[in-house]
Amino acid sequence: MLDPSKIPGTAPAGPIHRLSRVGMPVVGMVGGGQLARMTAAAAVGLGTTFRVLAQAPSESAALVTHDVAIGSHLSLPDLAGFAAGCDVITFDHEHVPADHLLALEKAGTLVRPGPGSLRYTQDKLSMRARLAALGVPVPRFAPVSSLADVAEVGRGEWPVVLKAISGGYDGKGVWVASSAAEAAEVLAAAAARGVALMAEEFVPFIRELAALVARSPSGQGAAYPIVATMQVDGICREVIAPAPGLNRELAIEAQAMALRIASALDVLGLLAVELFETPRGLLVNELAMRPHNSGHWTIEGARTSQFEQHLRAVLDLPLGSPAPAVLGGYTVMANLLGGTDPDIYDRYIHVMAADPGVKVHFYGKEARPGRKIGHVTIVGAPGQDITSLRDRARRAASYLRWGTEDGD
Amino acid sequence: MLDPSKIPGTAPAGPIHRLSRVGMPVVGMVGGGQLARMTAAAAVGLGTTFRVLAQAPSESAALVTHDVAIGSHLSLPDLAGFAAGCDVITFDHEHVPADHLLALEKAGTLVRPGPGSLRYTQDKLSMRARLAALGVPVPRFAPVSSLADVAEVGRGEWPVVLKAISGGYDGKGVWVASSAAEAAEVLAAAAARGVALMAEEFVPFIRELAALVARSPSGQGAAYPIVATMQVDGICREVIAPAPGLNRELAIEAQAMALRIASALDVLGLLAVELFETPRGLLVNELAMRPHNSGHWTIEGARTSQFEQHLRAVLDLPLGSPAPAVLGGYTVMANLLGGTDPDIYDRYIHVMAADPGVKVHFYGKEARPGRKIGHVTIVGAPGQDITSLRDRARRAASYLRWGTEDGD
Repeated sequence: MLDPSKIPGTAPAGPIHRLSRVGMPVVGMVGGGQLARMTAAAAVGLGTTFRVLAQAPSESAALVTHDVAIGSHLSLPDLAGFAAGCDVITFDHEHVPADHLLALEKAGTLVRPGPGSLRYTQDKLSMRARLAALGVPVPRFAPVSSLADVAEVGRGEWPVVLKAISGGYDGKGVWVASSAAEAAEVLAAAAARGVALMAEEFVPFIRELAALVARSPSGQGAAYPIVATMQVDGICREVIAPAPGLNRELAIEAQAMALRIASALDVLGLLAVELFETPRGLLVNELAMRPHNSGHWTIEGARTSQFEQHLRAVLDLPLGSPAPAVLGGYTVMANLLGGTDPDIYDRYIHVMAADPGVKVHFYGKEARPGRKIGHVTIVGAPGQDITSLRDRARRAASYLRWGTEDGD
Repeated sequence: MLDPSKIPGTAPAGPIHRLSRVGMPVVGMVGGGQLARMTAAAAVGLGTTFRVLAQAPSESAALVTHDVAIGSHLSLPDLAGFAAGCDVITFDHEHVPADHLLALEKAGTLVRPGPGSLRYTQDKLSMRARLAALGVPVPRFAPVSSLADVAEVGRGEWPVVLKAISGGYDGKGVWVASSAAEAAEVLAAAAARGVALMAEEFVPFIRELAALVARSPSGQGAAYPIVATMQVDGICREVIAPAPGLNRELAIEAQAMALRIASALDVLGLLAVELFETPRGLLVNELAMRPHNSGHWTIEGARTSQFEQHLRAVLDLPLGSPAPAVLGGYTVMANLLGGTDPDIYDRYIHVMAADPGVKVHFYGKEARPGRKIGHVTIVGAPGQDITSLRDRARRAASYLRWGTEDGD
């Protein structure tokens, strides 16, 4: 394992800005999904007061958080009313309009991460341009409005990746166009909806990795071990921490890169950097400035979970150790996706009975095909065979989907 | 580590009694203290709905639980109203009157542990008598109403331990009488208040240990590693898991004894058995049928925390593995007691800054001298020196008490 204090770019702890005079400070998280839900659980131990702004009382985090405000993240009055009861606000997603974030900050709310950082998660073109300007390796990219533009990015080769610069349509924001005809179709559909697109070269990666770091207002940084992520149809299915067989220099490079991006983009809280490992080195794919699916393994697998770390960072508390809980062992996380049967309680019982060492996390969400309804984590012992850990995690995940197409 | 399936008395998993038809079942915990608070956090991951019956909205668990009912555990209508919204009820303390427990059970509420088991935590004389009848080693004891009775239990030697059979007075239930005069004083004070007493021989123990086991309605059992507990003035200060240097046969004996007691007393949920290690073997001191201070280390130190385990047991879900999170390592837990300064935020920051690997748990309680306001846990690596782990835990605990008499 890497010692975070040895990573270039990790600043030492600076002065601490005390947020509370006598009691514990109040953190408000905008968004009521499973990330807020797991942050609520982390706040219990930390002793800080935690509030959630959810759209409905049935949302994942709203089911377990003591202090829930119901409102829309698209409404400035809802946001301002929520922020008025918090010492600092943070986010479970990146869908709060940039203007609202600026208005909140102008009104004196501590917004962490701030609007100047969050814009890079809302505008993929700015993100790519900014990273490229920083010298961070990214796939070749350009804004596109015609087939000729797309072809130029692909240098005549297919596939080419098309992305909505902000948002998307039909619930999608990324398309892999295998031919000019497919690209033309996406261009036409986006134009009809007024959605601006960008294109990126298709990167033939070896595998996908993710770097997770935290940064606090005092400038303290903490880097988690680099993990390998396995996606199917654009959905994260499995995470292995640390990434098996990853070259040590590449791991340090990835951690340092994430810390450098966090610093350059003034990120407060967590920054997750999705990476492609390619024969020519690392390329940055996406950024997220919040707890991330690739970091769920940290609840059991690291000394400080990403959820606690995010709270510590946005509160400017000293950061916790990102070291693995078990040195020299692997942790495997598998997402639980819903199947066609909404009644999962029997399966839930059997998953527990089959493997007392599997740690099951449920999000309180109704099971629907393909929906993330929970995850399982297995922490291995030092030197333990990774195949058996993955088999156990997959067996638990598969059993819960039994009966659906790919619930094997 | 011991394999629980190899412990005599560990029953295999029996049939699972499904508590829920489609959704997740609802567990209600009577009592709003820190045990309920930490159980609430465990329920988040488990995905079950968790309710708390607290006496006031300011109680530790009421501050973080989504679904809080305010009422008294001494009021049958309050208890019945609370139970009506739960599939099963359980407890954060042993102060619900036995008659109320029986009335709830008679009305069809699933009460776990049941009244027949809980009476042994409410009546120390019955507990001692029952354990003695089971052949479990206990200190010599007898109900007492005169100095002659006390002297007989002590066989003329002092000190002798006096205990209120139920409850106590002036916030105390245990007195160590160093002389006949002291015993006479306690007898007189108790008689004046109508409190029945029992006496026990004073056991010159080597150290105190605790066994923690879970038992489910299907008869499944799970035994955690035996821990050493360090008390000062009757308050638990520190727990080391597993108990350093404990003879392997004695550890297995303690686990087996706890499982046997759980089975004989039909305990559903957790059973904590406080033990004296003496030159003539183990003696049972006290029983608790709920999460216990001696088990807080399991949040980080075991694969399944005692809080999750208690929920699983009372729901008749398959039990989780009680194995340590790090095989071959020690986990140290130290309680955080309040000092004279109610403003602990600065100290809180410094504890985190001084040791990023310490895991801090705060209970949301106002700091008052000697009050348990939280705990810290440090999980060591295999083979790591226990002295350094204890020093780190004590440093964190001491720093928070700075300025008080014994905050050294």
